[in-house]
Formats: sequence, C-alpha cells, structure tokens
Amino acid sequence: MRIALLGGTGDIGEGLALRWAYDTDHEILIGSRDPEKARAKAEEYETELDSRGRERTVKGFDNEMAADRAGVVVLAVPAYHIGDVVESIADVVDEDTILVSPAVGMSRDDDGMHYNPPSIGSVTELVQRRAPDEVPVVGAFHNLAADRLANLDVEFDLDTLVVGDDGDARGLVADLGAEIEGLRVLDAGPAANAAEAESVTPLVINIAMNNDDMHDVGVRYL
Amino acid sequence: MRIALLGGTGDIGEGLALRWAYDTDHEILIGSRDPEKARAKAEEYETELDSRGRERTVKGFDNEMAADRAGVVVLAVPAYHIGDVVESIADVVDEDTILVSPAVGMSRDDDGMHYNPPSIGSVTELVQRRAPDEVPVVGAFHNLAADRLANLDVEFDLDTLVVGDDGDARGLVADLGAEIEGLRVLDAGPAANAAEAESVTPLVINIAMNNDDMHDVGVRYL
Repeated sequence: MRIALLGGTGDIGEGLALRWAYDTDHEILIGSRDPEKARAKAEEYETELDSRGRERTVKGFDNEMAADRAGVVVLAVPAYHIGDVVESIADVVDEDTILVSPAVGMSRDDDGMHYNPPSIGSVTELVQRRAPDEVPVVGAFHNLAADRLANLDVEFDLDTLVVGDDGDARGLVADLGAEIEGLRVLDAGPAANAAEAESVTPLVINIAMNNDDMHDVGVRYL
Repeated sequence: MRIALLGGTGDIGEGLALRWAYDTDHEILIGSRDPEKARAKAEEYETELDSRGRERTVKGFDNEMAADRAGVVVLAVPAYHIGDVVESIADVVDEDTILVSPAVGMSRDDDGMHYNPPSIGSVTELVQRRAPDEVPVVGAFHNLAADRLANLDVEFDLDTLVVGDDGDARGLVADLGAEIEGLRVLDAGPAANAAEAESVTPLVINIAMNNDDMHDVGVRYL
C-alpha cells in the first residue's frame, strides 16, 4: 500500500511516517505545500530509520503529487486548513483513494483547551463534505501521544479510534493502524460519531496541563 | 465524611455506594424521590456488603433529607432531570456542601450515541447555574464502567476525571474518588472543560457497540 502523509512534516505526520516505515513495508510519501520541505523531511526520516538499521525510501512531494500517487491519504494538517487541502487534491483522488482525517478543531483560553468543531459537527464530516462524493473518508489517529509516536525509542501502547461511513474504508484504515506496533485501533462507528472521538484531543491536553507527569498523554479503552 | 448519593438506586449510584462503603469508612446515604425505594436499596447494599464481611450501615432517605445530612452530594440522576433535583435540594445545601455531577446529556440515533449537552455547554455548568451561588460544584465519575463498578467481585483499574471552578472542592472530590480501590482520579481543570470530560461517556458507548468484547468499557489515560 502507498500511504501519503500530507502535512507529513508536522508532529503527528512525522510519527505516523516513522512508525509505518519502521514497522511495515508500506511505501511512505511525505506531502507538503512546499515540496522542498517535504523532500528535506523525507530525507531526515530516511536517515533516522537508517540509523536504526531500517533502510527505507521515503519520498517527498507537494501535496497534490503525493496524494495522486497514494491509495491512502492522511490529512495531517491543522483543522482550519484541512478544507483547503482537500480541495487542492480533489482532482487527483477518486473512489480508490481513502482520505484519513486526524485533525481536531480546538480553541484555547485561560481555562484550557476546548473542542471547537466546524459547524457541520466534526472535522471528519467537514472533510467528507469538501471531498468528491465518491471518495471514502475515515477519521482516525486523532489523539495519539505525538511525541511518543515520533520517538522510535519509546514502546507504544495506546489506542486510537476510527470513524467513518464507509465500513470497508474504516476497516482498511484500522488494519493499517494496527500494523504499527503497540497501537490498537477501535471502531467508533459512522462519521456521525466523529465529534466524540475528536474531542478526546482537547481533553487529554487538559489532563496533561492539570496533572503531574502526564505530558503527552494517550488513551486506552479497557 | 458523609456522602449522599441522590439517585443512589441507579447503576452509577449503586457502584459508588458499594465501593465507598466497602473501601472506606465514609457514611453513605442513599437518596431517591421515593424514600421507601431509597431505604429498600440501602438495605440491599447492607446485605451485599455484609455477605462480604463488611458490616456497614447504609441509610435511605428522600433526596432532600439525604442532601441535608451530607457534606458531599452526588447527583447520580439522569441529565434531563438534574436541574430539578438541584432545585429540590437548594434549601438544604450551602457553602459547606459540595455538589458532584456525574450526569451526561446524550441522545441516541441509528449511528450511535451522541453527546447532547444542555445549551450552557455541559451538565456540570448547568448544575452550577441552578445551584445556589455559594455551593461548590464538581463534575466527576462520568464514565466509569458502571457494571464493573457495582460488582465488588471485579478488580477495578480505571480513571475518572474531576472538573470544577473551586479547586479545593475539586481536590476533595478527587481524594474521595481515589479512596475507591483501583480508581485513579485525574484533574481536567475548571468547569469550562467539563464538556470534553462528559463527552467521553457517549464515546465509550459507541466503542462498546462497535467492537467485540468491549462491553462496559472504561478509560485509562497514560
């Protein structure tokens, strides 16, 4: 499988790129608005993987070229920006491309972090609306502990959720997620359930802010 | 400490009553609109505890009398009903009474369970608005696995969150929670952060509905 990580130069994109490249044989493409930046990051990831005895090719492209080449496109970009990114790749995705939305709309004030979804109810549903009708959309990888995910020295042992209306696409993304060692993927149902999954992200940030030794906290459902 | 569980005949009230009575020496009062029902349940809990070698007195009252006698009042009643319950006890609570709100506004449709808070933003904030100004309000115990909590045969190993604007009250409720064996209490900050804590309840129900062997699922933040 070829997986494109748009925004693959950011923290969650970096973690998914490194883990998939390290734990699986899927081909990893890094996308960015700036293809130079994407190529530099891809090279950095290759060096990091190489230093751990894992010789992998990671390629960098602009977002559209990365999306064009991939079967699964992870939109690892900020929520306020994701609609534009979806439109920028609309011509190169079709019913055989799965769009994955890990973004969460949040706002911060003196009390802490708050879930602040787009008016349609969730970022996952926003992506669904902005994407061409035939393209399946899956919300996933919302509240991974980003620092731990991107640090291959750390043994991972957390859960993530998938939501989406296309059961096959949801299953495929769940399987891809589960190939990352220590990551368990749970199904949270249709896209209408995305808000509850997404809002765990501001919650874990509030937990990190209000408790000792909980920096970069993740979730296990048990 | 004397703890009143209004709605202590329901599942989350039952779990908290049994666990606190079993694990601590706090005095447990069961409240219900119907004092007969409260007394019957209190007796049932006593019998259950007695059968496990824990001789405890649990008393049942109508809600107002239970609240009047207690320093901590847990409003273990449905979200749509909680405002009325708060008003029914307004005359007997004061700045020395902590109100604890474990309720969550939810709606269900074909997709699953959805967070459906009151317009003020969360049930915790609703309780705060409806309670007399001087009474501290803490949101807590929202997404405990109710069946496991109420089953003393089960070793408990889950997290719960406290939210509220009064730091002392939040700390006291956190300490009370942590006296239940296997329950870890994390601080999620002021009442403005309650929505994110409450919305974990519909999420875990969706997870239970969409995955095998996840009935009565709880959460650990790690």
